[in-house]
Amino acid sequence: MNLLQQKMLKPVSFTNVGIDDAFWSPRIKVNREQTILHQYQQCKETGRIDAFKLNWKPGMDNEPHIFWDSDVAKWLEAASYSLATHPDPELDRLVDEVITLIASAQQPDGYLNIYFTVVKPGERWTDLRDAHELYCAGHLIEAGVAHYEATKKRTLLDVICRYADHIDSVFGLEEGKKRGYCGHQEIELALVKLYRITGEKRYLKLSQFFIDERGQEPHYFTQEKVDRKGFFDEFMKYLDNIKEYNQSHKPVREQSKVVGHSVRAMYMYSAMADLAGEFGDESLLKACERLWNHLHTKNMFITGGIGSTGKNEGFTYDYDLPNETSYAETCAAIGLVYWNQRMLQLECDGKYADAMERALYNGVISGVSLDGKKFFYANPLASIGNRHRREWFGCACCPPNLARLLASLGGYVYSQMTDDLVVHLYVQGEAKFDLHGQQIIFKQKTEYPWNGSISIKINLDKPDIFGVKLRIPDWCKRAKLKVNNEEIEINGKLEKGYVRIEREWKNDDSIELELYMPIERMYSHPNVRQNANHVAIQRGPIVYCLESIDNVDFLHKLSLTKEGNLTSIYEESLLGGVVKIVGEAKLTDDPNWKEQLYSTDKPMNKPFQITAIPYYAWDNREPGQMRVWIQEEVK
Amino acid sequence: MNLLQQKMLKPVSFTNVGIDDAFWSPRIKVNREQTILHQYQQCKETGRIDAFKLNWKPGMDNEPHIFWDSDVAKWLEAASYSLATHPDPELDRLVDEVITLIASAQQPDGYLNIYFTVVKPGERWTDLRDAHELYCAGHLIEAGVAHYEATKKRTLLDVICRYADHIDSVFGLEEGKKRGYCGHQEIELALVKLYRITGEKRYLKLSQFFIDERGQEPHYFTQEKVDRKGFFDEFMKYLDNIKEYNQSHKPVREQSKVVGHSVRAMYMYSAMADLAGEFGDESLLKACERLWNHLHTKNMFITGGIGSTGKNEGFTYDYDLPNETSYAETCAAIGLVYWNQRMLQLECDGKYADAMERALYNGVISGVSLDGKKFFYANPLASIGNRHRREWFGCACCPPNLARLLASLGGYVYSQMTDDLVVHLYVQGEAKFDLHGQQIIFKQKTEYPWNGSISIKINLDKPDIFGVKLRIPDWCKRAKLKVNNEEIEINGKLEKGYVRIEREWKNDDSIELELYMPIERMYSHPNVRQNANHVAIQRGPIVYCLESIDNVDFLHKLSLTKEGNLTSIYEESLLGGVVKIVGEAKLTDDPNWKEQLYSTDKPMNKPFQITAIPYYAWDNREPGQMRVWIQEEVK
Repeated sequence: MNLLQQKMLKPVSFTNVGIDDAFWSPRIKVNREQTILHQYQQCKETGRIDAFKLNWKPGMDNEPHIFWDSDVAKWLEAASYSLATHPDPELDRLVDEVITLIASAQQPDGYLNIYFTVVKPGERWTDLRDAHELYCAGHLIEAGVAHYEATKKRTLLDVICRYADHIDSVFGLEEGKKRGYCGHQEIELALVKLYRITGEKRYLKLSQFFIDERGQEPHYFTQEKVDRKGFFDEFMKYLDNIKEYNQSHKPVREQSKVVGHSVRAMYMYSAMADLAGEFGDESLLKACERLWNHLHTKNMFITGGIGSTGKNEGFTYDYDLPNETSYAETCAAIGLVYWNQRMLQLECDGKYADAMERALYNGVISGVSLDGKKFFYANPLASIGNRHRREWFGCACCPPNLARLLASLGGYVYSQMTDDLVVHLYVQGEAKFDLHGQQIIFKQKTEYPWNGSISIKINLDKPDIFGVKLRIPDWCKRAKLKVNNEEIEINGKLEKGYVRIEREWKNDDSIELELYMPIERMYSHPNVRQNANHVAIQRGPIVYCLESIDNVDFLHKLSLTKEGNLTSIYEESLLGGVVKIVGEAKLTDDPNWKEQLYSTDKPMNKPFQITAIPYYAWDNREPGQMRVWIQEEVK
Repeated sequence: MNLLQQKMLKPVSFTNVGIDDAFWSPRIKVNREQTILHQYQQCKETGRIDAFKLNWKPGMDNEPHIFWDSDVAKWLEAASYSLATHPDPELDRLVDEVITLIASAQQPDGYLNIYFTVVKPGERWTDLRDAHELYCAGHLIEAGVAHYEATKKRTLLDVICRYADHIDSVFGLEEGKKRGYCGHQEIELALVKLYRITGEKRYLKLSQFFIDERGQEPHYFTQEKVDRKGFFDEFMKYLDNIKEYNQSHKPVREQSKVVGHSVRAMYMYSAMADLAGEFGDESLLKACERLWNHLHTKNMFITGGIGSTGKNEGFTYDYDLPNETSYAETCAAIGLVYWNQRMLQLECDGKYADAMERALYNGVISGVSLDGKKFFYANPLASIGNRHRREWFGCACCPPNLARLLASLGGYVYSQMTDDLVVHLYVQGEAKFDLHGQQIIFKQKTEYPWNGSISIKINLDKPDIFGVKLRIPDWCKRAKLKVNNEEIEINGKLEKGYVRIEREWKNDDSIELELYMPIERMYSHPNVRQNANHVAIQRGPIVYCLESIDNVDFLHKLSLTKEGNLTSIYEESLLGGVVKIVGEAKLTDDPNWKEQLYSTDKPMNKPFQITAIPYYAWDNREPGQMRVWIQEEVK
């Protein structure tokens, strides 16, 4: 174990973290009762599930698409997580049925992919850049791991182990093997999961191989495309740089800037973080840290969304953060959570948890409607009224990605170290740790994110000395901490965003943490031209937005006054219960302005009271405009 | 002659208007000495001219493109205008050479189109929607008319008359003729010109036929595309509405809103205005007026540019006027001039001249570099530093369009009516009118647009009673008028933007007009979200912009102070001699702002003196950012 590995944390599995609160529990319930079944129906109706019957023949309608396996796999993963925390015989039966179908599609040599079995047989592994073949394999692997974790059944796990073994026989440095890797990263992180659950080192090595080979010269994709067209050649030719698009422009350890397709990037960086930890690989960690800084200080929306344009579904250039045309794909914000959660296990630094929290409470859950049945693919930060969630997509990556994250959310709340229990997120519920040979239970009570008061009651059989690390979020400028009603000075105790309390803990000890949560006006880095002289409202981790329904049709006509008070009000009947914010603004409203388009007379303003709601909850009522960044008076 | 026709004006031909000033003359000289020859070379080098030899065979490189005829035709038109005002034997020889080549390409039946002769023989008139066949014919016709006007040679005129006769035999209401029209309007206005110079009514009727048929049901393009692919099918499928794209979504008399491709729209509206006048057609005039209002009050950039997106090279929705992504194609601003000049001949209303002037001094001439050799296709109102003029384009419509407008600019300055001589634009030089049987000469002296003092000396043999109408531009809020040094009260005399002085004019009478020209802060209609709380600087007809080279790298960091003085300074050595504007602003420049992307601390400002230059002159020095609309303090 090297130094890097000595610092590492271990996340507490979602199966040991109960969530029982007013914010996440309703979402997880909707996810379980609506979203997961809705997505099964969508997969069924669109032919994605039955495609595993391999009945499709050339000339038939509804040709299976190269992505389909992954949609079903992500649904299986979500359903499995849900089964782990909420047993449900009917869902269990559905899952078994789908797994039987998937297993039946496996070829004698272990290969398992619909498209290259029925649509393009004989063309396996010939279009790694575009055809998502290893990507689909990765999602099947994640599904198999999740299903085993959740149900202890090996039905899917055995199938995907055989598939992984087959892949391992095809790819590698050895003579006769392909030295390729996937144009859409995903299998790399999946293989790490498979290694962790099976203990089979070959899977870890295969993941490392894919990461290490990426971007090496002679370039695999260049050679691959010499005499073969790519599935996406038409699309790819609109890209400025195909190698940057899939982050194969350089070997990963030489990369310093986030480029290209943002979901591909997040999945790759996640695997890099995993491998850095598994191998104690400092060079991978350094690359992750450089990329992390570049992303979080120059290319992230305030909602935790990433990806500034739909053109490449990804990054553009530093400080380019357009609001109406932000791409901010739901999958990319989810990928940001995956990556930050992994970075956080490499080092207990609050900046990772801050980014994870920012995405979770804003740009991730904006992806799904409150009723759990409609989804955003892109999550813009402003809309002129024409952007609405949809029930499904031809390329349906986001909905099941959301479903699997929500169904396993408990896994992001706590970690533990050799002698420390760590609280990253404030979510009411009960968590079980296994430390120094006994079970320790944390009962967390809080109305977070609407309120910053958190209490944690600790239950354990015999008193024990260990540290409890509590995260003080970056948005919080003043916090108060008590243990058993006795105040503890935080100043001086804060290390990288966490305060650590080491003592002998006894049963029924209690921790009270008060995170002061005023309404904040947030400003962007001066280089962000789209937000110059604009302000965003944030309270706690929640980023706010204006919607027409609460304000006026044209939201650009509103300017916040500099001194105008902003007040927060909890409203139970609004959008499932939210804290809304009201305040003084000016509205451009000039009855003297005639038909002319340009004039030397400046349009007049009048006072107006604005109402802001949490960004994640927008587009759940009457359609209209939305904006996060609001003009502010310049003085 | 109906009422409509009684109100009409007649433009004074550019051949009777000498331009001899400090603003336009250097441009026209560069156009003559650089641009026109540069464009000949480009046409030659790219194979556009030699393509008329019809030597191309399938399988050969450099396949002639469907647009090519029109590029050469517009060059011929420009060269012809130039020959009319500046005889040049070498250019005359080049023109003759090209005309000989074009004539040699004419088929025995009069047909004349490179693409459908050598690339797709046998497919004539089968893809009217996309293939630009009648569009190319229209430009050849305009060239033939111009060449005849300029040189009195019939070489090209005879060729294009035969071609027009052939087209007339193919299209029409009569049994056996096609009831189609072009997907890119152009031939309609060309045929009116041909009618006017030949007196052949058939050409006028054919133009009327094309206009009247457009958008009728059953829809020609729908029928045409039933069993034939269009040249641009791939592109067209990205359009929301192909019929709106080419303005065939409704019969033209039922159209009220500007939609689709902006150049197509301008050329069509120009023909509609022409036909309204020729036929005294009130219903066409009403349609023009509705469309004019919609365009000029909701969809025009302050530079006179039009077209809000490159997606359809055209219109989007009302008040959508994005600055960085404005399309504002050079050809569309030129088309706006063509249309407004025609509307102005239907009614002497200053609003048409105002729009024409706005485009001419801003969004049209921004299309060409000061050296005459580089061109903008799109003319954005803001740039982050990545937009630059280019020497040529694959689709090279804009450069020769600019050249032909500049070479015939004199034709936009004056009109005459039965008893009135009308001054629309203030341009130094000498103009000849023919009124009441004698020649009258106006000698206009002015430093316009840098200075609003204008003097006109009138020369005529015998005293005569007539009216002189002088335009008082919309940008001018205070004007002073003297005749022979005697002040004339303008108030009460102003009708639709013109002041009329009727008297008995004697030789050497003089008119002095003083148009006060302060620096103005211009505001957009409150519905234009992109310009909320932004201001543009305008002085006289000139719209200003900031460039990085005179200010700072990131122009969004500048805000104009509300009270800050703005001062105008003529600088002879700057950009060919311009009035620049300097003034007080604030610059966001916060040394305390660290690496973080978002903060609760508002970035600080410091005072900064900005320098603005005329918009048309941007991108003629070191590359950098540019913006027209500048943030203004909100108070």
